[in-house]
Order: sequence, then C-alpha cells, then structure tokens
Amino acid sequence: MASVKVFGSPTSAEVARVLTCLFEKEIEFQLIRVDTYKGQKRLPEYLKLQPFGQALTFEDGKLTLVDSRVICRHLAEKYVEQGNKDLLGSGTLERASIEQWLQTEAQNFDQPSSALVFNLAFASNLEFAPLLGLVPDKEVIERSKKKLGQVLDIYEQRLDETKYLAGDKFTLADLSHLPNTQRLVSNKECCSLFTTRKNVSKWWEAISRRASWKRVVEMQQEPPPNV
Amino acid sequence: MASVKVFGSPTSAEVARVLTCLFEKEIEFQLIRVDTYKGQKRLPEYLKLQPFGQALTFEDGKLTLVDSRVICRHLAEKYVEQGNKDLLGSGTLERASIEQWLQTEAQNFDQPSSALVFNLAFASNLEFAPLLGLVPDKEVIERSKKKLGQVLDIYEQRLDETKYLAGDKFTLADLSHLPNTQRLVSNKECCSLFTTRKNVSKWWEAISRRASWKRVVEMQQEPPPNV
Repeated sequence: MASVKVFGSPTSAEVARVLTCLFEKEIEFQLIRVDTYKGQKRLPEYLKLQPFGQALTFEDGKLTLVDSRVICRHLAEKYVEQGNKDLLGSGTLERASIEQWLQTEAQNFDQPSSALVFNLAFASNLEFAPLLGLVPDKEVIERSKKKLGQVLDIYEQRLDETKYLAGDKFTLADLSHLPNTQRLVSNKECCSLFTTRKNVSKWWEAISRRASWKRVVEMQQEPPPNV
Repeated sequence: MASVKVFGSPTSAEVARVLTCLFEKEIEFQLIRVDTYKGQKRLPEYLKLQPFGQALTFEDGKLTLVDSRVICRHLAEKYVEQGNKDLLGSGTLERASIEQWLQTEAQNFDQPSSALVFNLAFASNLEFAPLLGLVPDKEVIERSKKKLGQVLDIYEQRLDETKYLAGDKFTLADLSHLPNTQRLVSNKECCSLFTTRKNVSKWWEAISRRASWKRVVEMQQEPPPNV
C-alpha cells in the first residue's frame, strides 16, 4: 500500500503541481478524488469554488502538508535517489538558483496568472458562471495581463542565457509554472503573452513536453465532464 | 454538501448497484474514489483483488453501511418521496414479492454469476492475471454456467407472467442484477445464457436501458485504463 496519498482533483493547479512532481520522481502514490453527483450529473469541479486549489491535502506516512511548493520540495528531498534527481539541483549553488526562481514563481508569476485563470476560464464559463454569480472582472484581467507581461519580460531575458529558469536542467522552478501556463496558453486572450516572447515560447515547448506533465494533462481531461 | 457518501470504484458490482439506486432516487451524493499510481501508470482496479466489491463503504450522515443490498433498501425507504417511488413497491404484497426476488438474486444468482465474472473477466486477463497468479478455473466456470442456467430457467418462466421480476414495474429486485449481468452479456462465453432465453433477453433489454444504469456503465468506462 502506497504511503503517499494525494487528496484532490488533478484539475486544481496545486494538485497538478504535486502530481507532476510525483511522476518525475517515480513515486508510488494513491490519488483520492471526490466528485459530487446530483441527479445523474457530475457537478463540475469548479462549482466547489476552489479554483486556486485549496482542495489539496498530502500525506506521506504521518506527515501532512497542504502547500504544493512545500510538498514538491519535500518529495525532491526525501526521495533524492529516485526518479529525476535534478529537481532541486545537486549542489549549493544550483539549489540557490532554483530557490530564487521558485520564489519568483510564487511571488510574481502565481498571482497574476491565477487571477487570469480564474477570470478567463472559470468566471467566463457561460454555463456555470451565472449560477455562481461569477462575472469576469475586466479591470483585473487587464491589470493581470500587464503584470504578467512584465514578469515574462524578465523570464525572456533570463531564458536567453539558460535553457531552463534555474540553469540547463528542468527543475522544480520550471515545474511550478506548468499548471497555470497550460491554461493560459490554451486561452485565446492570453496565449500571445507567451507566444510573442521567443525564449519563453521555446521554454514552454520544452517543459510542457515532459511525459510527467502530459500524464497530468490527460488526468485533467478524464473523466469527461458530464454536464 | 451532500450527506450521502460512497467510497469505492464504479467498476465494483457492489458500488455499481448503489450508484444505480442513487441515480434512480435522484439523491445528491459524493463519490470518493482511490486510484493507485506507479510511475505514470494507474494500476487497474482489479489489481486490488477485490473483484466482488468488498471495497464499498457508504455513509448517510452518521449511518455507515457496507452491503449494497442493505444500502439500496435504506435509500428506497429513507428517500421514499424522491425520484423513482416504485423500487420497493407501494404495498405489503408488492414489497413481499420484491423481497422474494431480491433474495433469489442474493442467494441463487449472485454466486454463480460472480464466479463467472471473476474467472472470465479477471482471471482470464492475459496482461494482469499472470502477475497475480490468477488462473481461470475451468471446472468452476462449467459448474457456474450450469447453475446459472438453472436459475435463469426459473427467471424465464417467471418473466413469461410479468415484465419485471417482482411485477409490472422495475424494482430493486431487477436493479440488483444489473452489474454482473452486464459483464456476462458482454462476454462471448456467457452471453448465450441470456440471449437464448426469450423472456430473460427481453427483460435484460428493458432493465439495461434505464438512464440510471447507462450512467453507471459510462462511469465504469471512465477514466480510460492507462495500462
């Protein structure tokens, strides 16, 4: 029986981050999902109003964690000899660079990208947003696009020097960007933020191609929403 | 938040029975599923070696139950004014007939049909059965086919008099037969047990056409096994 347990839906960005890390590290785990049915319909995940993924709980034996970035660090440190060994680098210098870009993701990229995901993917859904009284906030969208553009300008410069954010290898710093970026590049109002920046675009191609992430995207699509 | 919770996989016959009943009664509920992943693969449900569905737990507020037939009775009685009101009949006589055929299912139909499902669907899977040391038992298969044939002979007679087992309406007595029969009619070695009996065949067509059951079959097929 797997001692690692993830409670949540792969469609949550927080859960998706942890699943990608588990696949990179080739760790056996159990995924526990909760779906609500009414009549014969499965209610869509975002009706739970947890678009930012507060619905994540992680257990590893007796340890319980809820923050995806903390969980990913834990996995990379505890299972150091397993699967992808580069996620947190192999020396102090590498680790410092990874931590810096992890922090950039959490403090600069996450807020505007999550706001865009919420307003463009959830609050703009014509079928369910009205039920929840959600209205996309145009001002927030414009402000977030501008802010995210500024963050990506820094990424564009950085990625002119290195293939990945922290250096020449794919690390947790890149991995953390996958869930929100995936939703934004598939949104017509946002994809140009990424595609118009040559280095960012190449970086996205490289990180989204990973087998671990492809598997998570597959899991996000199944089961087909029955709404 | 739904007070009714089902823990288990729709692929289990026990769970499938309860889900069908919940859909018939239009009761809101949460389904909690547990999947085990190793590397990037989801291990198939039957690797848990619970082909007979011991993996069912049901909660309704503070009540916890584990037997699918007991759960279905509970749902039909507690939520009497909701959804399909005929599942346990509307009078003492009807109820007695339903209980008799429910008992026939549990005591006569279930054992040989479950043995056939196990030996033909699980133990005959060329990819996983060898990993588990499962070998289809030909003697059990022959004995179970014979026994099930005798049970179905009685059904054939009964269904010459009434459209459904307990009378003119679809009830829990019919519902209980859905999961195993579905697997057997789609197995080339067993389907003739049903198709060669005219009344049984018509009955199967009528009960398998119900929207509640079709929804469960859909759920059994999703997510697509990633093996």
